[in-house]
Amino acid sequence: MRLSSLLFLVCFFTVAMSQCAAAAKARHFRWEVSNMFWSPDCEEKVVIGINGQFPGPTIRAKAGDTIVVHLKNGLHTEGVVIHWHGIRQIGTPWADGTASISQCAINPEETFTYRFVVDKPGTYFYHGHYGMQRAAGLYGSLIVDVADGDEEPFKYDGEINLLLSDWYHESIYTQMVGLSSNPFRWIGEPQSLLINGRGQFNCSLAAAHTPGAKQCAAAGNRHCAPVILPVLPNKTYRLRVASTTSLASLNLAVGNHKLTVVEADGNYVEPFAVDDIDIYSGDSYSVLLTTDQDTSANYWVSVGVRGRQPRTAPALAVLNYRPNRASRLPAAAPPATPAWDDFARSKAFTYRILGRAGVTPPPPATSDRRIELLNTQNRMGGGHVKWSINNVSMVLPATPYLGSLKMGLRSALPSAARPSDTFGRGYDVMRRRRTRTPRWATTCTCSRTTRRWTWCSRTRTRWRGTSARCTRGTLHGHDFWVLGYGDGAFRGDAGDAAALNLRNPPLRNTAVIFPYGWTAIRFVADNPGVWAFHCHIEPHLHMGMGVIFAEAVDRVSELPKAAVSCGATATALMAGAGGHV
Amino acid sequence: MRLSSLLFLVCFFTVAMSQCAAAAKARHFRWEVSNMFWSPDCEEKVVIGINGQFPGPTIRAKAGDTIVVHLKNGLHTEGVVIHWHGIRQIGTPWADGTASISQCAINPEETFTYRFVVDKPGTYFYHGHYGMQRAAGLYGSLIVDVADGDEEPFKYDGEINLLLSDWYHESIYTQMVGLSSNPFRWIGEPQSLLINGRGQFNCSLAAAHTPGAKQCAAAGNRHCAPVILPVLPNKTYRLRVASTTSLASLNLAVGNHKLTVVEADGNYVEPFAVDDIDIYSGDSYSVLLTTDQDTSANYWVSVGVRGRQPRTAPALAVLNYRPNRASRLPAAAPPATPAWDDFARSKAFTYRILGRAGVTPPPPATSDRRIELLNTQNRMGGGHVKWSINNVSMVLPATPYLGSLKMGLRSALPSAARPSDTFGRGYDVMRRRRTRTPRWATTCTCSRTTRRWTWCSRTRTRWRGTSARCTRGTLHGHDFWVLGYGDGAFRGDAGDAAALNLRNPPLRNTAVIFPYGWTAIRFVADNPGVWAFHCHIEPHLHMGMGVIFAEAVDRVSELPKAAVSCGATATALMAGAGGHV
Repeated sequence: MRLSSLLFLVCFFTVAMSQCAAAAKARHFRWEVSNMFWSPDCEEKVVIGINGQFPGPTIRAKAGDTIVVHLKNGLHTEGVVIHWHGIRQIGTPWADGTASISQCAINPEETFTYRFVVDKPGTYFYHGHYGMQRAAGLYGSLIVDVADGDEEPFKYDGEINLLLSDWYHESIYTQMVGLSSNPFRWIGEPQSLLINGRGQFNCSLAAAHTPGAKQCAAAGNRHCAPVILPVLPNKTYRLRVASTTSLASLNLAVGNHKLTVVEADGNYVEPFAVDDIDIYSGDSYSVLLTTDQDTSANYWVSVGVRGRQPRTAPALAVLNYRPNRASRLPAAAPPATPAWDDFARSKAFTYRILGRAGVTPPPPATSDRRIELLNTQNRMGGGHVKWSINNVSMVLPATPYLGSLKMGLRSALPSAARPSDTFGRGYDVMRRRRTRTPRWATTCTCSRTTRRWTWCSRTRTRWRGTSARCTRGTLHGHDFWVLGYGDGAFRGDAGDAAALNLRNPPLRNTAVIFPYGWTAIRFVADNPGVWAFHCHIEPHLHMGMGVIFAEAVDRVSELPKAAVSCGATATALMAGAGGHV
Repeated sequence: MRLSSLLFLVCFFTVAMSQCAAAAKARHFRWEVSNMFWSPDCEEKVVIGINGQFPGPTIRAKAGDTIVVHLKNGLHTEGVVIHWHGIRQIGTPWADGTASISQCAINPEETFTYRFVVDKPGTYFYHGHYGMQRAAGLYGSLIVDVADGDEEPFKYDGEINLLLSDWYHESIYTQMVGLSSNPFRWIGEPQSLLINGRGQFNCSLAAAHTPGAKQCAAAGNRHCAPVILPVLPNKTYRLRVASTTSLASLNLAVGNHKLTVVEADGNYVEPFAVDDIDIYSGDSYSVLLTTDQDTSANYWVSVGVRGRQPRTAPALAVLNYRPNRASRLPAAAPPATPAWDDFARSKAFTYRILGRAGVTPPPPATSDRRIELLNTQNRMGGGHVKWSINNVSMVLPATPYLGSLKMGLRSALPSAARPSDTFGRGYDVMRRRRTRTPRWATTCTCSRTTRRWTWCSRTRTRWRGTSARCTRGTLHGHDFWVLGYGDGAFRGDAGDAAALNLRNPPLRNTAVIFPYGWTAIRFVADNPGVWAFHCHIEPHLHMGMGVIFAEAVDRVSELPKAAVSCGATATALMAGAGGHV
């Protein structure tokens, strides 16, 4: 193990950053969120921007730094929050940016200060976590470099940042009404895929290779001008790729170039080379790319849809070998996205992601508690479609969980069901069955601290004749080890549990669950707070596919007033003032 | 004076309702506001509905009753409030339903209880008062009958309720972004006019008389099915007409029938007969109609645009003389709307509205304070277009005025300008001049109580070559006497002031200001609270055309916690709790 790796490990296990990040500093940002006109794919729509930009500004920091974002809500009537995806918020659960869970939504004209430590290097991003504001464009990149004096366990000459998303022409308001309507209206497939907020709708940069497509302009200064990625020949670049899609599972390839995966979700992985990577909503990767191809050409970066029958054209960008002109489009066809339903290929990619030898810590050998969660799409009593976990569909309460649990305001919690730790043995994951009508309630699983949990999920989302698709589980406040995947039912201690990878599983914050399959993760409950564990697909989360892990809330330190100045927590605290206004 | 009138007068001047309304009761309503799909003019859009209805349910009560509305916010990310237009909220300023002024917006999933007395009979309505939610369809009728044992000063056999509005196909989110954008984008003319939430877009019920128009279906059960108003021959009906348009000034006529105006804004007026009435946003009228025409025919009710060059077709409804079939459309052409720019005609109508002899109390003969307000459209420093009053454009603060003023939280008030009581003598109302760049600030005019104010406004809104148009001023918490109107500059004590009508002016809550003219009103500041006085045109208000009258706030009784559980008031009250969460 090199010294740098050793140092990293020390940092990794140390919550107090002072030892390893003597140079750690506070980085201040003043942001205002507002609606604005923007044309991500040349069609003008209303997006949520930050400081007049879409996507929002990139935060760049060093491990151990404190990020301070003074976030002003410049929307007219909507609340807002921002979640810092992948940042564990150790000791600062109120800064996790989840409305109704970690804090009160920030009201229009108000400013809330997020203050948190980015404790480890990696490729992260941030996004809205209220209603479907993420899908309206409220997102941006958050990149954490190693602390001064530390080194990454790989070398590169330059960086390229690629924040991927999908884009709908219907407003999120219309989308949300459709999802809540009876009869239900699904949002459908996105109109465009975006790379760094730019995409092509109704045209292709590679029209010559795309039957029936119109050629898009290859240059310009419009919002939707193509993304040009300048590189020098014979150098190695770190591509930082993150996906904040509302729905789409993506695949990224760069024409003629191999990609070496070195990081996933802010954790190093054992390097492996591939022609393309799958990237699900909530994922981030670093891949190394060496510019070792014919220097007289430029090359396509292509991002296409996987896992659902695509109705959205791939997004293209240009890897521009300097000094070639940026506007010289590659003559070759863009790399083809692998067949959307080739799940064997997806699994092969995912199974190659393993913890980096000598760097990634191993998981605890055993767990103290096992939770089995089943995520389903259900029809409620009145005919409304909702998603649920263990037959409970999450509805977020007016008073955020963190405040109401910390203050013991049980009446502020949703009155109805808590999902149990398992969903019963009788469920046949390979056959659609009529599930019990789920209860409309918010789920809440309370716990003790410093316990180890294993979670298994089976997914069964065949619906309306479309083929099976994947689901993404994301956990706030923690990384987890992904111990294994399988098809059909998880067979418990006798079978699958014994075959889990306890040797070199990867650490992640988001994991895929393949159709009709299960995924087993393990995490250490060592971060007091209230944490969402949910599907990262925006309409699934919005319609209930989530649970809340309440983790040793009694050990959470004093909450900032601004995080609890709404609902029952505000009322209770104001009553403490003597009741006279 | 008849006994009933005398009784009414006693009620009118008595805040405590117990003496005159022994039968007064509390009427409870449970409402949930939500977005939903609706097709007001056969084009499906997202509207804000109440309990799944658009327009919202009609409240019907008797004078002296207490209305209790438990309003749940079922929107996903937006706050909401409801203002009870024309209800003076005597003693209950926190129930006035103005976000950032009288209360904190109600957060999603929360319920706020509005509890207030409807102290006098009349035709009222309610509507959203946050952002531009009124324009999204958040409105309904509020009708107050005389208390048991009392009588109206006119007779009728039946009632017809007509709530008028205009309708845009662009969402309010897009409208609001356009108004805030630089370059500015005006919302344009509405796509349709609605009668009780129903209108015709791209077709006419009277296509035979409308060149180029397609015939709409004359019946059906769609959202946009025509409004049919069944009547019996030789009866007198009271038409209760209110306008909650976002922009349009309207004119209403009923083919072949005279209309006798008897009430305006919940106050009796001296009856007068006309062929049609002008009705501006925020107005309500009762007009009597006698079904004394050919009983074999049905008749058109026609609502068209005045005051701006119309690009919106009139809305039509059918006055259905029973037993004729409702679907038998009138053979005659609908009554033509008077020329949009015939302001002389508009003035003639308005000037006929006077207090009812023996019923309407006279105004105080003198005033203690005079305020002169000039409403203008301005271009701010950076090029943004804003509306303002006395060169200050209202921006609503995060902490509502009522709470911050009552609690003395001066730091929670907008930091910048308060408009002065006058705008300077040099302003030539007949000539566009370059006004000072207004300050971006919220206006706040503080006062003592039980003082009488006269307010004069001159309007000058010629812009972009369109012709002059009217502005509507509406005052919360009070009725006012409209003492006079005039063209050009108000000449003060020497001239116009001496000619004001102090004998029989009408009481209103909303008044028109004709182009390049002034309107003088007088009111008694006898209702402690914080009251908006603003243009009733939704985009004008949203972009700053308003002031706040803070009236003897020290005499306001204890505020409900729910009205102040946000912003600096919540923070201050929570700090009083000892600071430990």
